[in-house]
Amino acid sequence: MKEIDPGQSYRLIEPGPVLLVTTHGSDGPNVMTMGFHVMVRHDPPLIGCVIGPWDHSHSALLETGRCVLAVPRATMSRVVTRIGNCSGADIDKFGTFDLSTREGTDGSAPFLTDCIANLECRLVDDVLADRYNLHILAVTRLNVAKDWKTAAMLHHVGGGRFRADGDVFDESEHMVLWRHLDHD
Amino acid sequence: MKEIDPGQSYRLIEPGPVLLVTTHGSDGPNVMTMGFHVMVRHDPPLIGCVIGPWDHSHSALLETGRCVLAVPRATMSRVVTRIGNCSGADIDKFGTFDLSTREGTDGSAPFLTDCIANLECRLVDDVLADRYNLHILAVTRLNVAKDWKTAAMLHHVGGGRFRADGDVFDESEHMVLWRHLDHD
Repeated sequence: MKEIDPGQSYRLIEPGPVLLVTTHGSDGPNVMTMGFHVMVRHDPPLIGCVIGPWDHSHSALLETGRCVLAVPRATMSRVVTRIGNCSGADIDKFGTFDLSTREGTDGSAPFLTDCIANLECRLVDDVLADRYNLHILAVTRLNVAKDWKTAAMLHHVGGGRFRADGDVFDESEHMVLWRHLDHD
Repeated sequence: MKEIDPGQSYRLIEPGPVLLVTTHGSDGPNVMTMGFHVMVRHDPPLIGCVIGPWDHSHSALLETGRCVLAVPRATMSRVVTRIGNCSGADIDKFGTFDLSTREGTDGSAPFLTDCIANLECRLVDDVLADRYNLHILAVTRLNVAKDWKTAAMLHHVGGGRFRADGDVFDESEHMVLWRHLDHD
């Protein structure tokens, strides 16, 4: 993993991959699967996430104001599904699913080192939480695997069925209005 | 196209495809490309969309409170990019890009009949619009092509580059907690 500009986050979030979310509250670390999220602003990067009281990670997110969004590889469809179908209130998911982790900055939520990318986030706005369980996160640090620009992500089409990224279509020559967003 | 239960919308939106958005305001119909959107609630289906004053469609959405979200096929990457790189203030995009349309319900925003699906939406909450240009839409009707469950969608990874849906991973046997959402 190498650290890059968090302003690159949109390349990972806009395509809509299923995500794993790690937290580390007073009852220890946890990880959940999340499908409802949105890039809200390119740079500085803001992400909206639906996480509710039905998620065991919810209280740790509110308590610490931090989480890590990890982007799983296409090969991880089974563990992504299983993580989403049990609760950290009952089991230690890191041990159960043999997840490789690395400590996050300042001992906060852990990175998942087998993933394509780990986005360290701070909760910056919960004004939307009451009505929609929608939390606004700012990405503070972005760590990526070497192959992050080509690795296949997973897209959840419902009911535990996924499509992985396939063919590449490069229409960049027709992207004339938005080139200022496309910085490396 | 056939009409199905709008409660199926999450199967099309949660995987994060790039979308086309049609509107029909007092200055005529328009279409734009959109990458920032999120499923907020399964059923009744709510979708959050970032559409701002920089989009020509913005005023028509506010004026009529309606739009159609169309899900393009993977083969449409070029037209999706070109639609997103010009303004309806300058040209008639439907004519320029030879888009096949069908009138929406009650003469509101048009369907794009070459797309995988068309979701007719009403703007139901703009409380988040001032801060994030995030509009909450309710899906009122959902029309899909015959192949909607297998057709490949497009995911924008930035700069006019896309990944199309590829391999299928079926982990439905491990989806034990959320089966109540998976209705046909």
